[in-house]
Amino acid sequence: MPTITAFENSPDRGRGQARDMRVRWALEEAAQPYDVRLVSFTAMKQAAHRALHPFGQIPTYEDGDLTLFESGAIVLHIAERHEGLLPEDANARARAIAWMFAALNTVEPPIVELSMAVLLERDKSWYAERLPGLQERVRIRLGELSRHISEANWLDGAFSAGDIMMVTVLRRLNTSGLLEEFPDIAAYVARGEARPAFRRAFEAQLAVFTAASRS
Amino acid sequence: MPTITAFENSPDRGRGQARDMRVRWALEEAAQPYDVRLVSFTAMKQAAHRALHPFGQIPTYEDGDLTLFESGAIVLHIAERHEGLLPEDANARARAIAWMFAALNTVEPPIVELSMAVLLERDKSWYAERLPGLQERVRIRLGELSRHISEANWLDGAFSAGDIMMVTVLRRLNTSGLLEEFPDIAAYVARGEARPAFRRAFEAQLAVFTAASRS
Repeated sequence: MPTITAFENSPDRGRGQARDMRVRWALEEAAQPYDVRLVSFTAMKQAAHRALHPFGQIPTYEDGDLTLFESGAIVLHIAERHEGLLPEDANARARAIAWMFAALNTVEPPIVELSMAVLLERDKSWYAERLPGLQERVRIRLGELSRHISEANWLDGAFSAGDIMMVTVLRRLNTSGLLEEFPDIAAYVARGEARPAFRRAFEAQLAVFTAASRS
Repeated sequence: MPTITAFENSPDRGRGQARDMRVRWALEEAAQPYDVRLVSFTAMKQAAHRALHPFGQIPTYEDGDLTLFESGAIVLHIAERHEGLLPEDANARARAIAWMFAALNTVEPPIVELSMAVLLERDKSWYAERLPGLQERVRIRLGELSRHISEANWLDGAFSAGDIMMVTVLRRLNTSGLLEEFPDIAAYVARGEARPAFRRAFEAQLAVFTAASRS
């Protein structure tokens, strides 16, 4: 059984925005059991964890001789080995993988940059002047994605690992108010969140936060 | 023969920092000939190109029935179909793919954010105050990568598609002065640039810029 790592104390207070959520969701879609090892912020930056993850982050994935890091790589690894996360047709499979990269390299960076500004620059003199530009860069991506999705259920035909990455990336905007400006995208995220595998993964990460709050 | 797209007028003036460089390099390593279709900034945002790339960017990749976007996905597609870009051993192969994602999702975002600030915020009142923090976030990643590479030639054993992505991401720092602070990383980038396949790819994209400048 694989072991993944997750935050001992998730900074999102159980809202499922940490990157272990992507891996949990993929494992649930593939009906694969897994163990979780919780890591503190201190331990995450120490040598033992860095041996698994050179950049000192979560999640990692250990299965027998294999150790992996990067949520995209872990989800792709799971998707390649189990049914239901990548199409059988070679071209459709390549396109699903393209959507994984698009989620991580084209859609996520401006979302993270906006989140970082909200988190770290709220008290800076320039915050009010910078914020609209950051929001606009996210809006451009959401507009493009909205035109692509339109009335489709998923990014490219059947649900795939590309949707896991895209939905979890978009969920980082949950409290930004921006998703509501794009009803097609809000509906797409809701479709992802309604999947039983998503629910199970979400409850599992929430249970970690709830237990930590009690102790 | 596949056709890729590239900027008609590269904003980097032929320094090989646009994302088509990654795809050219991978195709050269795999000894695969390819065609290039040049796209203007206007055409890139129009319907015909958006049918290939929903986010209106370059590169795209067309080969028979298949159309792909996202440099990471294109390089992975090439690497899966030709020798020399991914290890044969399944675990080593998964780790090489993890490095592709690490380059694009962990190392590139703070580098792009720094570049964007230098490009777009140089005349803002807050530029001098924000810059050190942006540089420090890049330095943290470079420090972690430097500890990982140390005296190794490549990221994980033999040269792979992971190195193509990482070297091209790091080259975006060429004029920042930051690479020079990490001699292990500067040497790693230089090793990548010294590969004959890199040189051929670089000359090919430079020829586009040179021809455009003459016309």
